[in-house]
Amino acid sequence: MSTRTPFRKMHGLGNDFVIVDARETGLFFTPGQAARIADRRRGVGCDQLIVMERASDDADLFMRILNADGSEAEACGNATRCVALLLFAETGRREAVIRTLGGRLPARLAEGGEVSVDMGPAYLEWDEVPLAEKADTLHLDFDCGPLVDPVALSMGNPHVVFFVEDVDAIDLEQLGPEIEHDPLFPKRTNVQIVSLAGPDHLRQRIWERGAGLTLASGSGGCAAMVAAARRGLVGRSARVDQPGGRLTLDWREEDGHVWMTGPVATAFTGEIDPSLLQG
Amino acid sequence: MSTRTPFRKMHGLGNDFVIVDARETGLFFTPGQAARIADRRRGVGCDQLIVMERASDDADLFMRILNADGSEAEACGNATRCVALLLFAETGRREAVIRTLGGRLPARLAEGGEVSVDMGPAYLEWDEVPLAEKADTLHLDFDCGPLVDPVALSMGNPHVVFFVEDVDAIDLEQLGPEIEHDPLFPKRTNVQIVSLAGPDHLRQRIWERGAGLTLASGSGGCAAMVAAARRGLVGRSARVDQPGGRLTLDWREEDGHVWMTGPVATAFTGEIDPSLLQG
Repeated sequence: MSTRTPFRKMHGLGNDFVIVDARETGLFFTPGQAARIADRRRGVGCDQLIVMERASDDADLFMRILNADGSEAEACGNATRCVALLLFAETGRREAVIRTLGGRLPARLAEGGEVSVDMGPAYLEWDEVPLAEKADTLHLDFDCGPLVDPVALSMGNPHVVFFVEDVDAIDLEQLGPEIEHDPLFPKRTNVQIVSLAGPDHLRQRIWERGAGLTLASGSGGCAAMVAAARRGLVGRSARVDQPGGRLTLDWREEDGHVWMTGPVATAFTGEIDPSLLQG
Repeated sequence: MSTRTPFRKMHGLGNDFVIVDARETGLFFTPGQAARIADRRRGVGCDQLIVMERASDDADLFMRILNADGSEAEACGNATRCVALLLFAETGRREAVIRTLGGRLPARLAEGGEVSVDMGPAYLEWDEVPLAEKADTLHLDFDCGPLVDPVALSMGNPHVVFFVEDVDAIDLEQLGPEIEHDPLFPKRTNVQIVSLAGPDHLRQRIWERGAGLTLASGSGGCAAMVAAARRGLVGRSARVDQPGGRLTLDWREEDGHVWMTGPVATAFTGEIDPSLLQG
């Protein structure tokens, strides 16, 4: 690759992406190139490199999601919202369907320039989370220090959600890894702590499986909202304030899918220097 | 500011900069804008924002150095090397003089596209470091765990340099803050641990005052080389391998100035979205 590679840098709640449009060029990135682009000091810097590719007829495009280690991710709600906004601007439409390795993701333009994406169904059965043994997922018999009586569910990835008075009073950095690795969770688990901030309004802090404390999590926001709705703390729609910003979640009656709505922003556009992609 | 702002992203040994040419536009950045540009997830991301401004006749340009907190820095050797390379490309010359708040910094194009910059004189007296009391800076009577008998000096900022068998065997994360805050150093101190890797070849790890473990330090490389030369371990020129890459240091006989030579690289060019600079 000897020419400059145009890209756009976007983020949703601080979850940030380098987005390259390869629909015309067929541009391909090796794991090494993805890692160099993701490097925050020597490259462009991002959580994931997103490659927009042509899709077959059932979607507007295929979105390839390359992690900083060069591996591929199946889905990312925040990246889907960023790419959807580009599609809306390009087509003038207010709806789009984006295909990833994880499946088809419908997206819609929402009020105030925010973007909604279908995060799929919430899975509520113990063996769907999965848990190591049959249990009541609505009142899971599990505790860790001050954290007791969680809700367990899957949004395609496992979550336990603890309700507390004050999310800032919990030492999540200490408790998170203990819970993540408890044998009750054979695929480990994300850990969400949630408090009620008002009617249909939650506050949330996040311990992400394999990543630790994070500022924002799309699937974590879905898990918090669904757990709160199952406990009767909120209706089927709620705002969730995460450290990185606010999401709105809607748990649809008709198909059990959760839609996530939130802001996305472009920070800058650029062209990658050919020297960065060599070697 | 309603138009897109062009910039270039460069780094020297991973010390990275967003460089904006304001010589024609007179562009000015508030501390808030500098902080938003420096943000690695929501902005462009950098250690410092560098603004190229017009200078009076005794320099090719004035280089303004804005820290991520919006404050101004007096000098930065790695940023000077990046900006000098841009000047060489622009003028076709192999020498340039860059003015900063800290003074005039001459720079030269070196072999292999590397860039040399005059880092100024090494200050060797105890009250120049400064130390809290009169002491022998060549064999400072100070120790901390396995670290003993350092050299103390100033490169405009204070350094103590410890020579050890194996820099990787030292727990610098634990010892660094103890030494940095010892009352012997009234302005605190940077801490360098250095081993001899071969003839005129040093290996170095860095504890940076106020920043902690860092991958590279221009003034730290100068301090390591001057300390080693004073102890007779190397001549007046040496390579120094830091975790982030290799620098070559020359301690000039005629004026006691230290010249630092090393690589610089452009990662990408871009245009900042106006929305990033608002508010």
